[in-house]
Amino acid sequence: MRNFDEHNITDAALDRFRDTPDARLKQIMTSLVQHLHDFVRDIELTFEEWELAINFLTRTGQISTNKRQEFILLSDTLGVSMLIDAINHRMPAGATETTVLGPFYVQEAPELPNGSDLSQGLEGEPLYVEGSVEAADGTRLANAIIDVWHSDKDGYYDVQRPDLDEPTLRARFRANADGRFRFWSIQPASYPIPSDGPVGQMLAATRRHPYRPAHVHFRISAEGYETLITHVFVAGDRYLDSDAVFGVKDALISDFKREAPGVGPDGRAIPTSWRRLTYRFGLKPLTVDPAATTDH
Amino acid sequence: MRNFDEHNITDAALDRFRDTPDARLKQIMTSLVQHLHDFVRDIELTFEEWELAINFLTRTGQISTNKRQEFILLSDTLGVSMLIDAINHRMPAGATETTVLGPFYVQEAPELPNGSDLSQGLEGEPLYVEGSVEAADGTRLANAIIDVWHSDKDGYYDVQRPDLDEPTLRARFRANADGRFRFWSIQPASYPIPSDGPVGQMLAATRRHPYRPAHVHFRISAEGYETLITHVFVAGDRYLDSDAVFGVKDALISDFKREAPGVGPDGRAIPTSWRRLTYRFGLKPLTVDPAATTDH
Repeated sequence: MRNFDEHNITDAALDRFRDTPDARLKQIMTSLVQHLHDFVRDIELTFEEWELAINFLTRTGQISTNKRQEFILLSDTLGVSMLIDAINHRMPAGATETTVLGPFYVQEAPELPNGSDLSQGLEGEPLYVEGSVEAADGTRLANAIIDVWHSDKDGYYDVQRPDLDEPTLRARFRANADGRFRFWSIQPASYPIPSDGPVGQMLAATRRHPYRPAHVHFRISAEGYETLITHVFVAGDRYLDSDAVFGVKDALISDFKREAPGVGPDGRAIPTSWRRLTYRFGLKPLTVDPAATTDH
Repeated sequence: MRNFDEHNITDAALDRFRDTPDARLKQIMTSLVQHLHDFVRDIELTFEEWELAINFLTRTGQISTNKRQEFILLSDTLGVSMLIDAINHRMPAGATETTVLGPFYVQEAPELPNGSDLSQGLEGEPLYVEGSVEAADGTRLANAIIDVWHSDKDGYYDVQRPDLDEPTLRARFRANADGRFRFWSIQPASYPIPSDGPVGQMLAATRRHPYRPAHVHFRISAEGYETLITHVFVAGDRYLDSDAVFGVKDALISDFKREAPGVGPDGRAIPTSWRRLTYRFGLKPLTVDPAATTDH
């Protein structure tokens, strides 16, 4: 087949995937080509715009490292990540809502004993976090594994701070026999997503602000349950209604309650005001009666 | 706005582009988000598939260099490049058909006098190319600038051969007062596009062959005319009907006529058989009566 025009080239491209042995891959590539061609036709993309797009995508790949993932940021800021989250997490009652992984998750966080302090001496308002991990039916999940990561008081993650060599404000905990975990850290801040790369240029060119409301990330896994990826957001944050990555859900907003100076829950003396977050996490069993699942 | 589900998140994402000052950018981003979300919804992309896609795109950026452009290759193999070509080059009668730029164009090719030999001693069947550059109405375009580049006898470009430091099988010529140019080189071969990267993995996973029919690239510019980007393909090539990047058009296929050993058109003695390509290139004026423009 030759002499493609702007109409028949789509059929020609689709036809090239006819022998794809993996049925799912064939479905994905077929849908991708159809939608991508429809997009190009709809806006009649010029050659110069195509060159800009090639350059944008190339730079998005090239600025990515093992500490920065610009394509995840692009997916997040276009609402694609939360769309995928919504499609794949139709949650039963009692299960915690999910949200984006974000670009700052690092797999090799250190495992620490309950009660540890993640702040490693970083300045900030002390934060005490106490959580419980349950099945949607209320069963406490002993030995659940909890990964936690969050920003410093200025909104930066450890991987963004060249002065920090060691994992900071991030760790892994194991729930106790009662499904509980607890740790000290510092209060996170709202912050701009990294804006010195292609995604930042896209946000600036479209007059979008890059801010996310303050939050703590949690990734919680337990045998027999779907791994939960979520945040808990700080109630009252000014960016709750305009999160640059569309990640906020009402049920994930919690009071990070300010407490007076004195003695902490574990007997620690605290000369300043401090914050306390208490949150119950509900996990979804790996097999769920479809009738009990609802869109959220 | 919060609590996005798989339906309302698209409106929320579209709304974020409401203040984009550049109307064209707003149109592009709006259409992109709509089509991208429709794609994700249609196939219900899983989180694991999204992670594979993020990884694929990142590697596609990271393998790209100033000598290799994997995102162009991806665009080419999905039929997107030729779709953009078709949309933007509705040609008047007499103008040469266009095709993809391809990933091997290099801007800083040396300018050589007419009659030069591009082969720099590389082995291969000698090829004599004589071309003319005209306006669609037949006016010869003196001083048109002709960039030419093509593969060696094994299908490799100079930028793919670590043994070649200098531009080889590529050069820039200037048409003479009569709009003509000519040069010696060697006969190009059909070849696989680079298949050691993400695009090659995509082709392998979908059982597509990576071959392009043998061709010579031309990029021809002249003041007052649209720059012409095209190839001339070797008639009879086995891949003319299945070009991996959809670039073939009948009018771009030409006989690379085999000639007997003896004396070349410029008096050069040729002890072996050799090839001769004669081609007329027609350029489209920058302003064309819309009534004279047709889809091709």
